[in-house]
Amino acid sequence: MTFSGALIQNAIYIAQQPPEWPIAAADWEHAAEEKLDPGAFGYIAGGAGAESTMRANLEAFARWRIRPRMLTGNVVRDLSVEVLGMRSPGPFFLAPIGVLSIAHEDAEVAVAQASAASGVPLLLSSAATHSIEDVAATNAPRWFQLYWVNDREICASFVRRAEEAGYGAIVVTLDTLTLGWRPRDLRQAYLPFIKGEGCGQYFSDPVFLSRLDKSPQEDLLTAAATMLATFPNLGLTWDDLDWLRGQTNLPLLVKGVLTGDDARRALAHGIDGVVVSNHGGRQVDGAVAALDALVEVRDALPEAVVLMDGGIRCAADVLKAMALGANAVLLGRPYAYALAVGGRRGVEELIQNLLAEIDLNLALAGGTSVRELDRSWLTRA
Amino acid sequence: MTFSGALIQNAIYIAQQPPEWPIAAADWEHAAEEKLDPGAFGYIAGGAGAESTMRANLEAFARWRIRPRMLTGNVVRDLSVEVLGMRSPGPFFLAPIGVLSIAHEDAEVAVAQASAASGVPLLLSSAATHSIEDVAATNAPRWFQLYWVNDREICASFVRRAEEAGYGAIVVTLDTLTLGWRPRDLRQAYLPFIKGEGCGQYFSDPVFLSRLDKSPQEDLLTAAATMLATFPNLGLTWDDLDWLRGQTNLPLLVKGVLTGDDARRALAHGIDGVVVSNHGGRQVDGAVAALDALVEVRDALPEAVVLMDGGIRCAADVLKAMALGANAVLLGRPYAYALAVGGRRGVEELIQNLLAEIDLNLALAGGTSVRELDRSWLTRA
Amino acid sequence: MTFSGALIQNAIYIAQQPPEWPIAAADWEHAAEEKLDPGAFGYIAGGAGAESTMRANLEAFARWRIRPRMLTGNVVRDLSVEVLGMRSPGPFFLAPIGVLSIAHEDAEVAVAQASAASGVPLLLSSAATHSIEDVAATNAPRWFQLYWVNDREICASFVRRAEEAGYGAIVVTLDTLTLGWRPRDLRQAYLPFIKGEGCGQYFSDPVFLSRLDKSPQEDLLTAAATMLATFPNLGLTWDDLDWLRGQTNLPLLVKGVLTGDDARRALAHGIDGVVVSNHGGRQVDGAVAALDALVEVRDALPEAVVLMDGGIRCAADVLKAMALGANAVLLGRPYAYALAVGGRRGVEELIQNLLAEIDLNLALAGGTSVRELDRSWLTRA
Amino acid sequence: MTFSGALIQNAIYIAQQPPEWPIAAADWEHAAEEKLDPGAFGYIAGGAGAESTMRANLEAFARWRIRPRMLTGNVVRDLSVEVLGMRSPGPFFLAPIGVLSIAHEDAEVAVAQASAASGVPLLLSSAATHSIEDVAATNAPRWFQLYWVNDREICASFVRRAEEAGYGAIVVTLDTLTLGWRPRDLRQAYLPFIKGEGCGQYFSDPVFLSRLDKSPQEDLLTAAATMLATFPNLGLTWDDLDWLRGQTNLPLLVKGVLTGDDARRALAHGIDGVVVSNHGGRQVDGAVAALDALVEVRDALPEAVVLMDGGIRCAADVLKAMALGANAVLLGRPYAYALAVGGRRGVEELIQNLLAEIDLNLALAGGTSVRELDRSWLTRA
Repeated sequence: MTFSGALIQNAIYIAQQPPEWPIAAADWEHAAEEKLDPGAFGYIAGGAGAESTMRANLEAFARWRIRPRMLTGNVVRDLSVEVLGMRSPGPFFLAPIGVLSIAHEDAEVAVAQASAASGVPLLLSSAATHSIEDVAATNAPRWFQLYWVNDREICASFVRRAEEAGYGAIVVTLDTLTLGWRPRDLRQAYLPFIKGEGCGQYFSDPVFLSRLDKSPQEDLLTAAATMLATFPNLGLTWDDLDWLRGQTNLPLLVKGVLTGDDARRALAHGIDGVVVSNHGGRQVDGAVAALDALVEVRDALPEAVVLMDGGIRCAADVLKAMALGANAVLLGRPYAYALAVGGRRGVEELIQNLLAEIDLNLALAGGTSVRELDRSWLTRA
Repeated sequence: MTFSGALIQNAIYIAQQPPEWPIAAADWEHAAEEKLDPGAFGYIAGGAGAESTMRANLEAFARWRIRPRMLTGNVVRDLSVEVLGMRSPGPFFLAPIGVLSIAHEDAEVAVAQASAASGVPLLLSSAATHSIEDVAATNAPRWFQLYWVNDREICASFVRRAEEAGYGAIVVTLDTLTLGWRPRDLRQAYLPFIKGEGCGQYFSDPVFLSRLDKSPQEDLLTAAATMLATFPNLGLTWDDLDWLRGQTNLPLLVKGVLTGDDARRALAHGIDGVVVSNHGGRQVDGAVAALDALVEVRDALPEAVVLMDGGIRCAADVLKAMALGANAVLLGRPYAYALAVGGRRGVEELIQNLLAEIDLNLALAGGTSVRELDRSWLTRA
Repeated sequence: MTFSGALIQNAIYIAQQPPEWPIAAADWEHAAEEKLDPGAFGYIAGGAGAESTMRANLEAFARWRIRPRMLTGNVVRDLSVEVLGMRSPGPFFLAPIGVLSIAHEDAEVAVAQASAASGVPLLLSSAATHSIEDVAATNAPRWFQLYWVNDREICASFVRRAEEAGYGAIVVTLDTLTLGWRPRDLRQAYLPFIKGEGCGQYFSDPVFLSRLDKSPQEDLLTAAATMLATFPNLGLTWDDLDWLRGQTNLPLLVKGVLTGDDARRALAHGIDGVVVSNHGGRQVDGAVAALDALVEVRDALPEAVVLMDGGIRCAADVLKAMALGANAVLLGRPYAYALAVGGRRGVEELIQNLLAEIDLNLALAGGTSVRELDRSWLTRA
Repeated sequence: MTFSGALIQNAIYIAQQPPEWPIAAADWEHAAEEKLDPGAFGYIAGGAGAESTMRANLEAFARWRIRPRMLTGNVVRDLSVEVLGMRSPGPFFLAPIGVLSIAHEDAEVAVAQASAASGVPLLLSSAATHSIEDVAATNAPRWFQLYWVNDREICASFVRRAEEAGYGAIVVTLDTLTLGWRPRDLRQAYLPFIKGEGCGQYFSDPVFLSRLDKSPQEDLLTAAATMLATFPNLGLTWDDLDWLRGQTNLPLLVKGVLTGDDARRALAHGIDGVVVSNHGGRQVDGAVAALDALVEVRDALPEAVVLMDGGIRCAADVLKAMALGANAVLLGRPYAYALAVGGRRGVEELIQNLLAEIDLNLALAGGTSVRELDRSWLTRA
């Protein structure tokens, strides 16, 4: 399928009535800000500390420029990628985002329905409001993101459930062994978990429920506090990965790697791939931009599976990350805004638009496949 | 003719009554924005994706600074250039811009009248609202810009008509084998072609008309859709240039070249010159700035005919591009705004002002001819 | 003690009612600006000349980025530092700031109470409104900052009183031998000293009082003018340090060093440590950023005790300065704003928040101790 | 005289009543903008083309940072300079600015009175409204700036009159052999000369008057037009300098030099010194920043007399230019604004403030003399 053909058809149509939905990532964000209450918007939009990591993520993309090639005869392009057995029609997956119920009541199920409809895989968060099983029921192409909490039995249960529910890989997040310092949430006293939001995996988990005296329905605050209490796990070391590696035969990725050294360590522990990420600037304030870290990691590991997230807002960002060595990127905040604005249909619209924009930008840049892009396609500004 | 002499005369005059027209490029743009409806203004002003290529085009000029030379005795300056047999009184031509009827009802004819009056050549667009022949009737110095659509007979017909109507060269655009992703137009659902605007070459072309069952007068939407359907032609390769080369004895240029490799390929296929351009940032988002690409292309081809467009807003920009190796530059959006504000007289005013400003800036920088400028006249900021 | 554990407890609490106090440094500043009269706010917030040194201080931090390390098993972190025998629970002390009575009536005593409660040491200013002895009564961990005025007997008296009152070191300020040119104060005609504010050490000093004919209670303006007249002392040279060195057995630091050469000179004169500082941009306009000077000084003196201040606003700033070689940093304006907003409780809140934010940022960056940080933890943007 | 002593006295005074005048350069500019009509303000504040040279002038200063030195014992500083026999109490002179009658009715005489009172020399403009002789009557320390118009007899007459009226040097401007393209003036149709403003030297000159049929009093417009007609003189070459050199025994400087090559040429023609200048960004748009050109010129001519102007707004700027090799700088727009706001007293205030600020900044940076500054006092940001 090529999207630009569809686009022109669509253009003729839309030219007769204005579009129902926002177009650019910034449009979705503004629309979401108008719709959501300040606490929920701040939770999604905010970052750690002075939010300098968030800014750095965006600025890093501006320093690389694409060098288009003409007349490459690329009437057919291939936007698809396959990463550890998971295919996507475009070079992006949907990043794991917790607590999407604060954006829209249909939360992760709506996202998964959009994922299933578009074929773009979803990484379901450990901190989702909907459960592993409910999301699996959508038939979305799916991986499971694991917060490695301080109760190995809960972790093992999550992994087992994800395997049984057909998730294609486990992506364990390394950068959030405790929550970052997030001024927007602190100002608003915003902590959705204590209302049970983002507790979907826990409240549906037999091991977690066995830890409670009363069910979450009977005593929500205690259940939520118990969940939060399992969270901090800063004692984890690279050697602990061996235990996790032993819990599953699924591909196992680590998310939050920002240096070449850490990427090498991950592979030495049998990890199948790394996600270069600073968690969208939500954890370490002042951290290196994700795109800059991608360059370091790819230089260190020319052959490994390397995904990245952080600052992806438009097609040009996707193509630059691919040219700098990503096997695929993860799209984060933009789809949370689209969910807030339009639920499942909003997310579908965003995905289709991004696919179309990537296809057009690749087509016009002279690419035949997103997988052929390398640094010769870029120059520094 | 020297413009600065005229300027002082003029200054004495204008000092007695305020100027009728805007002065700087930004003034024309603001006046145009006030006059045009948002859809038309957005179509002209907008770019692809996040519009980062547009911004990069402008920013690239700021990084080069002119090194003025004193007392060069340049009482007479020569602003003129001759490119492939086409002379201009100043080192710029008018870039091909489609659909100018959205800016002013007189559209390309008004621009051509200003071109004829000033002697600054016009590149007539394949997507103009007025026809090749109507524009030729103005006696403007003229080249024809060709969109190489997916119907060779239409292309050949356009080329033949341009030859017969006295156009001095064919400039085939390589960077728009399909339309870019332009959020401003998508937001407004703005597609002027379906109302017949920008279809002037097609609706006056015997080959194109033979493809229709009903005339455009009878069924405008179908005619416009047919026109749009001829547009995408991503299958084109460098070898296809040999066919086009064979269709005409006119000088043939390619527009949209952004790398030294592509410029070399063009020359290898018998092309007479290249226009370094990213289509004003309207096609590939995140692309290299046109001025930076000019440096790469000129380094690759020290002797070739190289024009450029993208970000030219004032005399300093023109002189910098000349010093970096352009044989001439193309002026784009500014004259579309002048057309919107003042029709033919607006475009004439803009041209005369830019000529005067170039002459003064060259005079004061110590230049005797725009053609003598080289990199020794510049330094990096 | 680890702060992040406390944080999650706190988060559960605050999620049920909004925080009483500002969160980020910018929030405190805005709240202070609303509360204070323009003269007082301008005195605290302003800098010398065009305030370019102030801006440079902030911008310098943005150019360094932290390279987080994952899975270091840092469940216990050590934020504490010990500098010349003075311990702090976090890698910052409270910078000497004069005239805090313009921010809050409790002034330095309130700050000292917050210092005592938190254990974060205070550097009491020679230009404080409360006296050496009154501040000592709070039992705050404390050093004394000395303005070396042009009357050695007053200097000696200040040093003797500080020793007797249990101050742990003398920090002599080199960069303020006369006051800088501060447009905000000049515009407001703001000079708090002539109302007796900031004269606490003088009006309680037997030597100073012996210089007056009438007591400050009888003739405040003359007393204040006499105090101001002792101030300028530009004749001081490095050799004069030997005299001061001879006045005390306490550790002696010099504050205001901005070059490696000066740092070397200080050590050659028996100084125990240097504070790299441009006085928060309040003295030399156009000066080098404090963080950039820290790099030069640390390169020059790999083993010396080096503190720094200037631009510290958040945890990331603290960690970057530590990684660039500071033994500790001094926090300045932010606590003056907190004092203005909330008195002692405001300062305590600010300190606890900064400790928590540092702990979280260090935890998430993979650090086990603030003292292990070096340049391998950073990269240039 | 040291200014900082005076400053503290003054501070005690002003602390009891707000200052009558603006403090910083930006304050004067804002006050002038409020007071002047838009045409006059635009004429003073504006620059050529897109005004990018003006911005570059300011930005160049931000890239250099001062490295203060402590404890240099500089209780006495020497701000004075002597350039070709002309002394100034500070390292700046007042740049030649034409048509000051548009700022204040007392125009150049008011400036000259402030110059006489402060001892800071004035460069009287050829385009002043008050004559060579009227300005000389103030006893201001003075040089004469010559626009080398296309009538050698007028030039020679101007030079002769300046000699006779006790001007200490002739500074011939090379960068304004015709007027630049200035959009602010063009928008306002602002040309003060046609009302006789800025014609003081001409209308008092016997040679010029001999060219008229009717006196300026009888026919102002013709007289002004005749004056303007003498202006353009782009035919001048370096060899012509030999004629001018022969007209006077006074020191002869050229103003407007921006390259090392031109500076060498000037010296080869017997010129006594150069003023690095881009005319405050009023002539060549897109030109190199004056401070960057100063570096090139000083590198080319380590021993020559080199002044500079362009972007001097505060003491830090002055010190940076001195450290980069200027023998003195010229202060331009700021004093025109001060004249507009307060006439002679405004200019005096501005001069005294700048002297005091320079003295304080030098004192605090550890300098003993503005003449000892070299590049070791600076670092790049």
